[in-house]
Amino acid sequence: MNNYKIGVVGFSGYSGAELVRLLNSHPHAEPVLLEHREDQGNPPAHINQPQPLRAPCTPHSVRIHDLAVVFLATPPEVSMELAPAMLDAGAKVIDLSGAFRLRDAATYSRWYKHDHTAPQLLAEAAYGLPEFCRRRIRDARLIANPGCYPTAANLAIQPLIAAGVVDRSAGIVCDAKSGVSGAGRKPSLKTSFCEITENFSAYSVLEHRHVPEVLMVSCLDEPELSFTAHLLPIDRGILETIYVRTRNIQSSQDLLDVYLRHYAAEKFVRLYQPGSLPDLSAVNRTNFCDIGFKFDPATGRAVIISAIDNLVKGAAGQAIQNMNLILGCDESAGLL
Amino acid sequence: MNNYKIGVVGFSGYSGAELVRLLNSHPHAEPVLLEHREDQGNPPAHINQPQPLRAPCTPHSVRIHDLAVVFLATPPEVSMELAPAMLDAGAKVIDLSGAFRLRDAATYSRWYKHDHTAPQLLAEAAYGLPEFCRRRIRDARLIANPGCYPTAANLAIQPLIAAGVVDRSAGIVCDAKSGVSGAGRKPSLKTSFCEITENFSAYSVLEHRHVPEVLMVSCLDEPELSFTAHLLPIDRGILETIYVRTRNIQSSQDLLDVYLRHYAAEKFVRLYQPGSLPDLSAVNRTNFCDIGFKFDPATGRAVIISAIDNLVKGAAGQAIQNMNLILGCDESAGLL
Amino acid sequence: MNNYKIGVVGFSGYSGAELVRLLNSHPHAEPVLLEHREDQGNPPAHINQPQPLRAPCTPHSVRIHDLAVVFLATPPEVSMELAPAMLDAGAKVIDLSGAFRLRDAATYSRWYKHDHTAPQLLAEAAYGLPEFCRRRIRDARLIANPGCYPTAANLAIQPLIAAGVVDRSAGIVCDAKSGVSGAGRKPSLKTSFCEITENFSAYSVLEHRHVPEVLMVSCLDEPELSFTAHLLPIDRGILETIYVRTRNIQSSQDLLDVYLRHYAAEKFVRLYQPGSLPDLSAVNRTNFCDIGFKFDPATGRAVIISAIDNLVKGAAGQAIQNMNLILGCDESAGLL
Amino acid sequence: MNNYKIGVVGFSGYSGAELVRLLNSHPHAEPVLLEHREDQGNPPAHINQPQPLRAPCTPHSVRIHDLAVVFLATPPEVSMELAPAMLDAGAKVIDLSGAFRLRDAATYSRWYKHDHTAPQLLAEAAYGLPEFCRRRIRDARLIANPGCYPTAANLAIQPLIAAGVVDRSAGIVCDAKSGVSGAGRKPSLKTSFCEITENFSAYSVLEHRHVPEVLMVSCLDEPELSFTAHLLPIDRGILETIYVRTRNIQSSQDLLDVYLRHYAAEKFVRLYQPGSLPDLSAVNRTNFCDIGFKFDPATGRAVIISAIDNLVKGAAGQAIQNMNLILGCDESAGLL
Repeated sequence: MNNYKIGVVGFSGYSGAELVRLLNSHPHAEPVLLEHREDQGNPPAHINQPQPLRAPCTPHSVRIHDLAVVFLATPPEVSMELAPAMLDAGAKVIDLSGAFRLRDAATYSRWYKHDHTAPQLLAEAAYGLPEFCRRRIRDARLIANPGCYPTAANLAIQPLIAAGVVDRSAGIVCDAKSGVSGAGRKPSLKTSFCEITENFSAYSVLEHRHVPEVLMVSCLDEPELSFTAHLLPIDRGILETIYVRTRNIQSSQDLLDVYLRHYAAEKFVRLYQPGSLPDLSAVNRTNFCDIGFKFDPATGRAVIISAIDNLVKGAAGQAIQNMNLILGCDESAGLL
Repeated sequence: MNNYKIGVVGFSGYSGAELVRLLNSHPHAEPVLLEHREDQGNPPAHINQPQPLRAPCTPHSVRIHDLAVVFLATPPEVSMELAPAMLDAGAKVIDLSGAFRLRDAATYSRWYKHDHTAPQLLAEAAYGLPEFCRRRIRDARLIANPGCYPTAANLAIQPLIAAGVVDRSAGIVCDAKSGVSGAGRKPSLKTSFCEITENFSAYSVLEHRHVPEVLMVSCLDEPELSFTAHLLPIDRGILETIYVRTRNIQSSQDLLDVYLRHYAAEKFVRLYQPGSLPDLSAVNRTNFCDIGFKFDPATGRAVIISAIDNLVKGAAGQAIQNMNLILGCDESAGLL
Repeated sequence: MNNYKIGVVGFSGYSGAELVRLLNSHPHAEPVLLEHREDQGNPPAHINQPQPLRAPCTPHSVRIHDLAVVFLATPPEVSMELAPAMLDAGAKVIDLSGAFRLRDAATYSRWYKHDHTAPQLLAEAAYGLPEFCRRRIRDARLIANPGCYPTAANLAIQPLIAAGVVDRSAGIVCDAKSGVSGAGRKPSLKTSFCEITENFSAYSVLEHRHVPEVLMVSCLDEPELSFTAHLLPIDRGILETIYVRTRNIQSSQDLLDVYLRHYAAEKFVRLYQPGSLPDLSAVNRTNFCDIGFKFDPATGRAVIISAIDNLVKGAAGQAIQNMNLILGCDESAGLL
Repeated sequence: MNNYKIGVVGFSGYSGAELVRLLNSHPHAEPVLLEHREDQGNPPAHINQPQPLRAPCTPHSVRIHDLAVVFLATPPEVSMELAPAMLDAGAKVIDLSGAFRLRDAATYSRWYKHDHTAPQLLAEAAYGLPEFCRRRIRDARLIANPGCYPTAANLAIQPLIAAGVVDRSAGIVCDAKSGVSGAGRKPSLKTSFCEITENFSAYSVLEHRHVPEVLMVSCLDEPELSFTAHLLPIDRGILETIYVRTRNIQSSQDLLDVYLRHYAAEKFVRLYQPGSLPDLSAVNRTNFCDIGFKFDPATGRAVIISAIDNLVKGAAGQAIQNMNLILGCDESAGLL
């Protein structure tokens, strides 16, 4: 099989660095670091080991290096600027920002608080959650890699909604906790070590910009979902505790069966014995989404735990999974 | 004012050590370390500074040292054994375990999974949450110091239930996160450093033994409260994210007013401007419970954040607050 | 005894905030927050508890509030600008920066890489290490509060050098490790959570600006001291591991006696039994410097461990100790 | 190329689990978990993904599964018991404990404080530091995988001693800091989360059992090396700060040349530009040993920083490197 050259913009950010790390051990891919603004300079300090190739971040680099795919690990403003040019240069684009995840520019600007500057691409962009959108991803030129919180939330919620086993009138609570790398690498007081260590806080209560992705994929109305994000004093990992009132579910096995119908053959969703629950160390540096739950037959309440590594299944790993799909490689190549 | 001698059993545990630390800087109290089993031995290694007094943990020590109060920072099994003897010896007892918090032995044995061995004391024990039970505490011989999770939960939930502004049929979700010191000092794999750092997990989902304390104080029925405990990779602190659907509340100010009616004059409950939320560092090593919330007028949903230091307001600090009440000192002596 | 009003410049930094915390529980002092540039704005979010007084950072504020002492918890450039004005306004000044610690402007500019802009004050400034300079501090108008690393180093090294029990020709190694709060509160990539957690690094090897303070106080020549600073993934605390070759020392007790001659009556230096060693939790949030050592009689080697809380004995606590001396209070007021 | 079946004893410990993780992604090896005492039970909680093979830990399992190599990730007492039996069963043995690292039983019992129960194997065991002992390793039946601290120390010190550029009369200081996983997975108070987080401590000063390995490999006399171990509040990583007085070295380039002569072609030792220093994140989850230094031409002092991941280059990774050598695979297979 061929070796593909793959561009990475934003390689010095946390998601970008994780992409480079994963591509370095991928059997059919090789990273090319596309230097965009802050990413320039700072080569590694050690001197007797090989380094990945570097090139300027331009459509010209796409052509001369014959890049099959360009990853954009950039803020949405930058992605809206770069995606059209990279597509024009012939690359397929996998964007890790929120720029192309929502279906219309109005919803985008409500939640992201700025205008969309490339709305012409929204219709063609495929939402890159392979477990639900595999077919569309394979044929797409532009893939919107899902947000970290929505990945964990939708993989846990969507099967229940699709099966009709949730009492939606009671509301769904998704209490989400993330490691600090989800906030990106740009220094700020809020992500300074002394402000985070031995601390824990909630933020963006009921108004996080990832909410519309959950509503879109799991087919919920806004008042039905109460979502709170929290900042954990750890580097990486997302754990979400999801509270639902079920209907037509009699036992833990019933609930497990709903998940098994979706995920029995999925390589990157692991289901737990009822009563067993995943923790973050189970998914650390893996592309797995682990799902476990506790069901109370007396009241029909279920508490579901969904865990991912925010930089892998929540960003770079899922992006590689999407890359594998569009290149025709094994979907798990470089990820196990 | 007199100086009182105060006994501490379990002084080498985390709550007990915090009691000793607080008593050492209390203007009217002086600790006497009562050596009980594992607490023996291990004097500090430094040699040129004064140390607190030590005595055996017996009723005899209570009498010869004329201890006004004995704190039991011990597991419930030990507290059920020691409390009767210490009361007989003439001390007032403040128990930091769950032994005397619930009103009947049957409820106790359901949640604690063992029998109650001193049920004759359940009726007289005062529940030591000063903000709600100040009068009863002042006259009590035996005080059941509240659990850490219920302290944060009840201070946030009870005023709303009492004011009738919660739609109880929709259920209340209390998603609680605690530092590791809440699990005590006894070594175990679950609290080993390498298992906790860079990790996060849920436990005791829907069946934590602190649930009945919340039901009792906030007057809720069991199916109305969904409570999940989580273990944070930090030493100390509890933050609870509480989801309710309100009724008869039009605005953030309405909701704030409910809290102000209870807490305007309380020294240890701090209310936040609507939209501002406490984090754990705000309460670290303090006896404060900080409460903030986000209210969504369109749907009536409220998300309330309640934060305490589990070893202070959630254990030793609240115990000192109770001691101040029964000794007739200023309630905040040694705590600000 | 009177209550003194005490100004704090830089109160939103880590050392400044610690000063305010300590002054709030001091029996004879009350803080006034002097707002200087970044310190403006950001009042606490809670609404039903008292707050410290605030005033502009000007000599005028010194006079109208009759401030007895002004603490400068500011970078050295700011301290060199503010100290003359505050002294002229009649306050005594305790500066927590490095601005006034060294005896001549040339040494200062060599290590701090910029010119000294208030050299006229260098001669009168007292070096604020009470254990060695108590008498001079009592009479000073301007006190240079010691650096955090030199405090731990000099308290461990100076007694040995003064007693002549070190083979200086073999060199002294001081391997120092500090928590991140020592780097200040200004956001930077180097102190971002994700760069620090699960990491550890050395910096300023052989050229840290605190080196000349150790040389000055312990009377060493530069080639005799090898000093390396390291960054620990913790909030606060400094532990230094110091390697010396002794002479004229036969036993651990001999070495302990050297320290006891200096520190038997000192309230803030704790000596450990030979073979016992302090760790950082022993000094966390205290004004103690804890010293222990391991002595090898076969070779005369000694390894000494010196531990402080960098924000207390290494900054704000020692500054309060100095304030107590110049105000004539008990030296330990507000610090035990 | 064949796929080899490889036994792992102690797979539930930290080094053993890392071995399994590395073998799972090795191109020519497949792990077999050999269940020995505590390792029994506890299969993973998830249900829809493949698991490694398990077998009892007996010589019989070695034969029926035709295990090419057996890793012993066990305490030295267990390794001394199992190694002879596994060798008799025809496997090659790579032992990760200290059992077979030293050349004679008397030195072993002095530092390990118990007798050696398989001294007949000491002469044939090859010390598994490939950079220095590659030839002997290739032909060995029994390999003593190096200790974590000595790996980082010897890779930094041995080239300097061998080149004769160290003034040994001045002594060498090796100040070593390790993550907690180096202490193993057995629960103890010393490695409990609340005792480690926000803490830092020295231990085994001048008497750590890894000292004789450094003396043996770097050819030093005991009084020449002062070694102190410290416990960092992190999961994994060792950083050592090494102080030497050089001779016949005029410049940083001279010193770098000494290292380049040994390591220019080594895949797992990375050298840094003079003045640049490695930190622990540079080596996290890699098999690299990173070496950087600061040289002071005025005095000839050098401070060298050596960093590894204690579970990879300091344990499981180096063990795989040794396995690759004895199986005739590429030395870096499964490690880059």
